Amino acid sequence: MQFPYVIDTFFLLFAAVLIILMAPGFAMLEAGLVRSKNVVTVLTGNVLLYAITSFVFVLWGFNLMFGGNGFFLDGITMTDYSIYAFAFFQMAFVSKTVSIMSGGLSERVRLVPFMLFAIVMAGFIYPLVGGWIWNGGFLSGMHDLAGSTVIHSVGGWAVLAAIMILGPRQGKYDKNGAIRPMPASSIPLVTLGALLLWIGWFGFNGGSNFKISTPELADTVSLIILNTNTAGIAGAIAATLFLYARYRTLDVTMILNGALGGLVAITAGADVVGLWEPIVIGAIGGLLVVLAIPMFDRFKIDDPVGAISVHLVNGIWGTLAVALFSDAFTFWAQLKGVLVVGAFVFPVTWVLFALIKRFVGIRPNAESEYNGLDIQECGIESYPDFVKSKV
Amino acid sequence: MQFPYVIDTFFLLFAAVLIILMAPGFAMLEAGLVRSKNVVTVLTGNVLLYAITSFVFVLWGFNLMFGGNGFFLDGITMTDYSIYAFAFFQMAFVSKTVSIMSGGLSERVRLVPFMLFAIVMAGFIYPLVGGWIWNGGFLSGMHDLAGSTVIHSVGGWAVLAAIMILGPRQGKYDKNGAIRPMPASSIPLVTLGALLLWIGWFGFNGGSNFKISTPELADTVSLIILNTNTAGIAGAIAATLFLYARYRTLDVTMILNGALGGLVAITAGADVVGLWEPIVIGAIGGLLVVLAIPMFDRFKIDDPVGAISVHLVNGIWGTLAVALFSDAFTFWAQLKGVLVVGAFVFPVTWVLFALIKRFVGIRPNAESEYNGLDIQECGIESYPDFVKSKV
Amino acid sequence: MQFPYVIDTFFLLFAAVLIILMAPGFAMLEAGLVRSKNVVTVLTGNVLLYAITSFVFVLWGFNLMFGGNGFFLDGITMTDYSIYAFAFFQMAFVSKTVSIMSGGLSERVRLVPFMLFAIVMAGFIYPLVGGWIWNGGFLSGMHDLAGSTVIHSVGGWAVLAAIMILGPRQGKYDKNGAIRPMPASSIPLVTLGALLLWIGWFGFNGGSNFKISTPELADTVSLIILNTNTAGIAGAIAATLFLYARYRTLDVTMILNGALGGLVAITAGADVVGLWEPIVIGAIGGLLVVLAIPMFDRFKIDDPVGAISVHLVNGIWGTLAVALFSDAFTFWAQLKGVLVVGAFVFPVTWVLFALIKRFVGIRPNAESEYNGLDIQECGIESYPDFVKSKV
Repeated sequence: MQFPYVIDTFFLLFAAVLIILMAPGFAMLEAGLVRSKNVVTVLTGNVLLYAITSFVFVLWGFNLMFGGNGFFLDGITMTDYSIYAFAFFQMAFVSKTVSIMSGGLSERVRLVPFMLFAIVMAGFIYPLVGGWIWNGGFLSGMHDLAGSTVIHSVGGWAVLAAIMILGPRQGKYDKNGAIRPMPASSIPLVTLGALLLWIGWFGFNGGSNFKISTPELADTVSLIILNTNTAGIAGAIAATLFLYARYRTLDVTMILNGALGGLVAITAGADVVGLWEPIVIGAIGGLLVVLAIPMFDRFKIDDPVGAISVHLVNGIWGTLAVALFSDAFTFWAQLKGVLVVGAFVFPVTWVLFALIKRFVGIRPNAESEYNGLDIQECGIESYPDFVKSKV
Repeated sequence: MQFPYVIDTFFLLFAAVLIILMAPGFAMLEAGLVRSKNVVTVLTGNVLLYAITSFVFVLWGFNLMFGGNGFFLDGITMTDYSIYAFAFFQMAFVSKTVSIMSGGLSERVRLVPFMLFAIVMAGFIYPLVGGWIWNGGFLSGMHDLAGSTVIHSVGGWAVLAAIMILGPRQGKYDKNGAIRPMPASSIPLVTLGALLLWIGWFGFNGGSNFKISTPELADTVSLIILNTNTAGIAGAIAATLFLYARYRTLDVTMILNGALGGLVAITAGADVVGLWEPIVIGAIGGLLVVLAIPMFDRFKIDDPVGAISVHLVNGIWGTLAVALFSDAFTFWAQLKGVLVVGAFVFPVTWVLFALIKRFVGIRPNAESEYNGLDIQECGIESYPDFVKSKV
Repeated sequence: MQFPYVIDTFFLLFAAVLIILMAPGFAMLEAGLVRSKNVVTVLTGNVLLYAITSFVFVLWGFNLMFGGNGFFLDGITMTDYSIYAFAFFQMAFVSKTVSIMSGGLSERVRLVPFMLFAIVMAGFIYPLVGGWIWNGGFLSGMHDLAGSTVIHSVGGWAVLAAIMILGPRQGKYDKNGAIRPMPASSIPLVTLGALLLWIGWFGFNGGSNFKISTPELADTVSLIILNTNTAGIAGAIAATLFLYARYRTLDVTMILNGALGGLVAITAGADVVGLWEPIVIGAIGGLLVVLAIPMFDRFKIDDPVGAISVHLVNGIWGTLAVALFSDAFTFWAQLKGVLVVGAFVFPVTWVLFALIKRFVGIRPNAESEYNGLDIQECGIESYPDFVKSKV
C-alpha cells in the first residue's frame, strides 16, 4: 500500500528537520549562557559535535543500534517507510546526547579531547543503550517514547561524570565557600536557543511515534505534540511562581531551564498519558530544575548551564513518571531502566574522561582559562568590536 | 475515509509549528527594538506570555471559543482532523494577541501586572471575539481568514488603550515638544525576528484554511501562502520607496515594519483575492505603517516598536480590503466587524489597565525606569560583558 | 487522482518554507561576518534582496523561465501539483543567487546600485540560465538537481565579476602586500546563519525532486536529504582536520564555510549517487573552501565572507562531480554547462556593474566607507548601546 509509506516517510523527514533545528537551539542557548570570552569555543564545539557524532552514527552507530552488522545502513531494511528517512531521523537524535554535555563542560574543556569522547558516545555508548531500550534489548520492558532515559539521562549521567573529572571553572568556588556568579553573556541568545529547542521538541517527541498514517496514529501524534507543549508550559510557569515567591525577580534563564525541564520530563510518556497529566509532570520538572541548580552548586559541581538539573534529574523523573501516570508500565521496569543506564553510562564516562585527562589532557592551562578559551582553541574572538567590561 | 483526516491533521501540525516559530520571532524583534537596559524584561515577557496565554487557552479559552462547556477540550469533537491538532493550532494563535502588545508597552510596563491582563485576554477577550467571528457568532457574516481583526486588531486596540493608561517612556517627549529618539539596541535581532514572523505567517494564513486534502483545497492553501508572501514583499518595497524618496536613507526597522504591515493586511483575505490584489493590499499596508508611526509619535502615543501602526491600522485596513477586492463580502459587514471589535476591546482593556494601575501598580518607579527594568524585574542584565555607551 | 496532487503540493510548500528559512540564514551569516559598522547595511541588503528579487521573479521571471509569455504565472499550467505551490517554491530559490553576492560585496557596495543589478539578475540572467538547464533548454543534457550551477555558480560568477569591478575594501591590502584581517563582528550570528542555511538546504535539495507521492519518490527524497547532510558533515570535518593540522586552532567561521562548501558540492548530484559518495564530494568541497579563501586573498580579490570559494568553486566542483560519481551523465555535458554558464554570467555581470559604476556610482566615498556604511546608507547603527573598540 503506497499511502502510508509515503506519508510516514514525509512525516519522519518533517520531524527530523525539526529536531535538527535543535542544533542551532543548543548552540545559541549555550553561547548565550557562557561568558563572552568562551563563546566561540562553545559554538565550535556545538558545530563539531553535530558533524562528528552524526557522521559516526550513520557510519556505524545506526547499524549497531538497529542490528545490522555492516556499515552505513547496510543489512537493515524497513518496509513501513524509507530507510533513508528513518536513518536521518535517528541520526538527528544522536548529537543531542553530547550537546547536553557541551554546556555543562563549557568554559574549561578543550575541544579535541571532548571530540574524542563524542566519537565513543555516538559510536558505542548511545547505540548500545538505544538498542537495549528501543530495539528489543533487555530493557525493552520499560517505556521511553523519545528518550527521557535514552537521550537525556545518557547525556546527563555523562556530563555529571565528566564534570567530576574536569573540576569547576577557575574561581567559581571561593576558598571560604562562596559561589561566584558568572553571568550569561547574552540573554537574547539564551531565549532564542531555548525556544528553538522547544520547537524542535515537537519533532523529537511527535516523530518518535514514527507513523501518522491512520486516524488513530494521527491522533496519537497530535496528542504527543500537545502534551509536549503543555509540559513545557507547566515547567515554565512552575519555575516562575517559585522564583517570584522566593526572590520577587524573574530570571528568564531559570524560567527557560524550567520549561526545558518540563519538556525533558514529558519525553518518556507523552503518548501514554492524557491531557491533564503533563501539567503535573511538567510542573514538577520545572520545580526540580530550580531546586537542583543551586543544590549542585552547593556540592561544587560546576554546571554552567544547568545541564544536569535539566537533563539528568528530569530524565529520571520523566521515566519514573510514566509508571505513576499510566497503568500500562510498572514502576520497577521504569526504575530498572534508570538504574541500569546510570550504572553503565556514569562509570564508563568517568573512566574515559580519566583516561583522556591522563593521556591527552583535557583542560587549558590556567592562563588560557583566565583569558578565555576562544583565543587558544579557536584563534578568534566572539565579539571583537565591543569593549569588554571584564575579562 | 482515512486519507483526508491524516493529511489534514499533519497539515495542521505543520502550520502550528510554523506559527510557534513566531514566538522567538516576536521575542527577537522586540528585544532588538528596545534599549539594552530593558532587553531581558522584554524577553521574559515574551516567554511568559507564550506560557501563560497558551495555558489559559487550552485550559478553558478554547472551550469558550468553540462552544464546549467544560475544560481542556472536553465536550468538543472534530471529525475532519484530530481535535488535538486543531486545539494545538488554535492555541498557537493566542499568544500573538499579547505579543503584539508586549513591544508597544515595553521599557515601562512591569511584568506581573501585564501578565494579569494577559490571562483575561487569553481566557475571555480573545475567545469571545474569536467565537463571534469564527465560530458562527453574530459577526460571522464578515470574512477574516486568519485574523486581521480577530488577532491583529484585538491586540492593536488593546495595546492602544494600554499605552494611553500607561503613558510614554520617561524622557520620550520633551516639555518643548521635541521627540527624543531611543534607538534600537540590536538590528540583527530585529531582522531575525521579523523574518521569523514572516515565515511563521505562512502557517498562520495557510493553516487557517484548515484543510489541504483535495486538489481544490491544496490550490487554495498554496494561493494563500503565495499571496501572503506577495503582500509582505509589497509592504517592504512600498516602505522602501517612501523612505528613499523622503529621507534618502533606508532604515531597515521601518522596512521590516512595512513588510509586517503588508502581512497583517493580507491576513483577512488572502484566500478570496487573486494574485495581483495582494500587491496593492500589501503596498498600502506598508505605506500606512511608515505614515502612522510618526503620526502616533506626534500625538505622544509612545509605541516603541510601532505595534499600533503595524497591527491595528493594518488589521483594520486588511479587514476592509476584503470587501474592496472581493465581491463576496460587503463593506458593511467588514466595517461592522471592525467597529464592534474596537468598541468591545478598547474600553474593556482601558478599564482593566486602569484597575490594574490603581490596585496593583503597573509602572516601575522613576529610578528603576531610568536604570532599566532588567535589574528590578529580572535581576540580570542582557549583555553584562559589554561596556555600555549610555544608560 | 487526488492523493499525489495533494501530497506533492504539501511537500513543495514544506520545502519552500525551509528554503525561505535561508533568508534569515544568509542575513545572520553575513551580518556576523562583517564589522559592526557595516552590519545594518548588510541586513538591509538581505531584506531588500529577498523582497525585490522575489517580486521580480513572480511578476515575470517565472514566466520567462518556464515558458509562459505573460506575467505572474499567466499561461503556465501544472497538472501534478498546484501551480501556486510550484511558483512559490521556485520563487524561494531566486533570492539565493543575489544573497550569495551580498556577502562578497559587503562593506563597500551601496545598496541602490546593487538592487538595480538584482532586478536584472532575478528578471533575466537567472531565468535564462534556469530555462536552459531546467526547462528543456540547450543545456538540459547536464544534470543539476538543485542548482550547483543554476544557483551557486551563477551567483558565484556574478560576485567574482562584481568584486573585480568594485575593488577591495579600504585598507584590506597594504601597499607592501600585507593582508589586513578584518574580523567577524559576531560569531554567534555566523553560526546561527550557517546552521539555518544547512537546514534550509534540506528543502532546497529535497524539494527539487518535486514529488514524494510514491514509495520510490519518497525513497529518492529521503536519500537526497540524507546525502545532503552527509556532504555538509564531510565538508565541516575535512575543513576541521585541515585547520587543526595546519594551525592547531579551529576557526569556526572556516569550519562552517567548509560545511557550506560541502552542501554546495552535493547540490547537483544528491539524487544520483549512493550513500558513500557524498563523503568524498563533501570532503573535497570543504577542502576547496579552506584552500581557495586564502588563494583569492593573495590575488587581492577581496571577498569578506568567502562567497566565491563556497559557491563558485564548489558549484563547479559539484557539477563536475556528478559525472565522476554517476555513469548516467557525461563529463563533457557537465563541463559544457559549467563553461557556458560562466561565459554568459561573468561578462554580463562585469558589463552591468561597469555601467552601474559609471552612470550611477557603486561605492560610498572614502570617508563614509571608513566610518562604516550604516550611517550613510541606513541612518542607524547596528549596536548603538555598546562602546566600540575600533572604527
